[in-house]
Amino acid sequence: MSDLSEFDSVENILKKLGRDDHDKVSRILFGKDTHKIEVPEDVQKLSSQHQIEIVSCGFDCKEEQLRSPKIVRVGIFQHQHPVPTSTPIKETREAAFKLAGQAIELAAKSRVNIFCFQEAWSNLSICRLLFCTREKITWCEYAESAEDGPTTMYLAELAKQYNMVIISPILERDHIHGETIWNTAVVIDNHGDYIGKHRKNHIPRVGDFNESTYYFEGNTGHPVFETEFGKIAINICYGRHHPLNWLAFGINGAEIVFNPSATVGELSEPLWGIEARNAAIANGYFTCAINRVGTEHFENAFTSGDGKPAHKDFGHFYGSSYVAAPNGSRSPGLPRTKNAILIAEMDLNLCRQVKDHWGFQMTQRLEMYAELLNKAIKPDFTPQIIKKK
Amino acid sequence: MSDLSEFDSVENILKKLGRDDHDKVSRILFGKDTHKIEVPEDVQKLSSQHQIEIVSCGFDCKEEQLRSPKIVRVGIFQHQHPVPTSTPIKETREAAFKLAGQAIELAAKSRVNIFCFQEAWSNLSICRLLFCTREKITWCEYAESAEDGPTTMYLAELAKQYNMVIISPILERDHIHGETIWNTAVVIDNHGDYIGKHRKNHIPRVGDFNESTYYFEGNTGHPVFETEFGKIAINICYGRHHPLNWLAFGINGAEIVFNPSATVGELSEPLWGIEARNAAIANGYFTCAINRVGTEHFENAFTSGDGKPAHKDFGHFYGSSYVAAPNGSRSPGLPRTKNAILIAEMDLNLCRQVKDHWGFQMTQRLEMYAELLNKAIKPDFTPQIIKKK
Repeated sequence: MSDLSEFDSVENILKKLGRDDHDKVSRILFGKDTHKIEVPEDVQKLSSQHQIEIVSCGFDCKEEQLRSPKIVRVGIFQHQHPVPTSTPIKETREAAFKLAGQAIELAAKSRVNIFCFQEAWSNLSICRLLFCTREKITWCEYAESAEDGPTTMYLAELAKQYNMVIISPILERDHIHGETIWNTAVVIDNHGDYIGKHRKNHIPRVGDFNESTYYFEGNTGHPVFETEFGKIAINICYGRHHPLNWLAFGINGAEIVFNPSATVGELSEPLWGIEARNAAIANGYFTCAINRVGTEHFENAFTSGDGKPAHKDFGHFYGSSYVAAPNGSRSPGLPRTKNAILIAEMDLNLCRQVKDHWGFQMTQRLEMYAELLNKAIKPDFTPQIIKKK
Repeated sequence: MSDLSEFDSVENILKKLGRDDHDKVSRILFGKDTHKIEVPEDVQKLSSQHQIEIVSCGFDCKEEQLRSPKIVRVGIFQHQHPVPTSTPIKETREAAFKLAGQAIELAAKSRVNIFCFQEAWSNLSICRLLFCTREKITWCEYAESAEDGPTTMYLAELAKQYNMVIISPILERDHIHGETIWNTAVVIDNHGDYIGKHRKNHIPRVGDFNESTYYFEGNTGHPVFETEFGKIAINICYGRHHPLNWLAFGINGAEIVFNPSATVGELSEPLWGIEARNAAIANGYFTCAINRVGTEHFENAFTSGDGKPAHKDFGHFYGSSYVAAPNGSRSPGLPRTKNAILIAEMDLNLCRQVKDHWGFQMTQRLEMYAELLNKAIKPDFTPQIIKKK
């Protein structure tokens, strides 16, 4: 189903350079090399059966004298639309669950501890619903309870079976507060228990992304979920453009922040490698950026507010999911065109090591910025502008 | 004087790829292409005479119906140490002024409107003083008045002569407040008048950078200087690691933020292309990142707090100065090893165009973050952590 006009990845093109040139360029573009980690042979076989590519790597970390290593394996999964966008809701969801089951099995066999999907993963027609076509009727039925909706119930079983924390970004229906809809990430622990949720804080109004038609800005703050494998948080999609959103998860103590997304090439691709990586550096935690794959087509043409004629597709979701470390190094990106899982092994001790080294948190001067923001939010705020007298 | 073991630039290595591959990789790594701008022939000649390379480019911007274009040419200058580090202060300063005069003439002939130096540029022995060797005596004499010290007086003449705004990062001596020292950027307008200064907000304690030995965190807030060519601000060196520092200049209305720096390879090179570019995207302004060039050697060996033996040099200042636009595109980088000026032409209307397109400012929710920071600065702050009940 991939768009053949799209190329596979920047990393594969750079491999055409000579070894020495490649090393120089890589060191600057991608930081300190990651090391290889093994993925069992039966996983490789199963991965080609399911057509889910596997890429794996490990981040280096120094041993400490007083703390034991806190090694964790993260798996992030990017995928395309396995059924046409016109497929009815129940059937679509079943196709999504089947694909998810395959991916989670692959991750489990690769000893993944924390698994995260892309944004609103089980609503495979996310584009129809949320983004471009602005069709509400029928497709709003996708929304489900975070605590005990079908997606959470389905994944809870797998989480327990495989001893794996699962982060599941869904379209949430809040039955208690007016049956409103939210863009939400659910966290299920490795015993299969729901432990909490986070609602998307920043909602885009850009290009074909008409999300503010469907739900409001999240009201769950910046929760950090303390799991057996580490302290994790979720910055959903457009929130990656907001340095304050990343900062807040850092202030609350996150060690890994996941960024489940769905974004297309023309719009955001040159920004993709920058933002989650900058957040990892600035906040002293690992970030995992996950994007959707493929090009989706619709029956009814729609306009995009850019003055161009109505059209029936949305642009290419370019995948390229990656993991960035607090020391500025990053994993290879997943392909731009294929279903794939990135497995990254990391020692969470690296977070504090980098904080001690760079000192960004110690030198942060939050008091100064609290004072500035208190002033800046007032309608009569006067910016600090200096002109010649 | 350049270290021959160092290579020229990532951009030049990437040119070895085939045309098609190069275009694909460039689009993703560097964003939308910049266009060529002309530099007069006599400038080219003079540039090779002075051994100051010139790189130039222009950023695209749509024409608007109601606002006229606000075209401005920025020149940023990176340079290495023209005299040995043991050279006496007065002689060093004279060598610095001579080099500065050549660079400013080149910029003026290329019709530059705003010119910015690297951090503490006229203290050519910056490394000896501030960073690694921790020698105070004699070298503190470099510090001078921001308003009417010799560097400001020298540049004021040139600013007036060439109708050019000049940003001059110096080591400041504050004669009114206890003769203390500051790391300061001075802004001189195109009529040769001093219009204000900004003191470095965030002071590093990392690797060989012992700056907190010499001066304190800046107390001048986040001023934006309104000049005839645009609203500009300065984020000095280590402040580029602090997203809140960048944000504050954006809140105060900056259209271009300069980041005069002095940083070495091992420490920061993989972060260099990320941080100032992320700031341009997140805050809807242009950023200009300027780094020093070359490897400097000292008579007395010094240790670095990294457990390694004492040594006599500091690592390679890798240049690579660049300009980033709010739409995520960026200029080529200057070489990693040579004195050079980057001339970038931009239409400041692009700032608001990108804000209208992406909506990051509208969706920023500053109230939420003001509230969080007010809590986070309290000693008894409780982070928002969710555990299983």
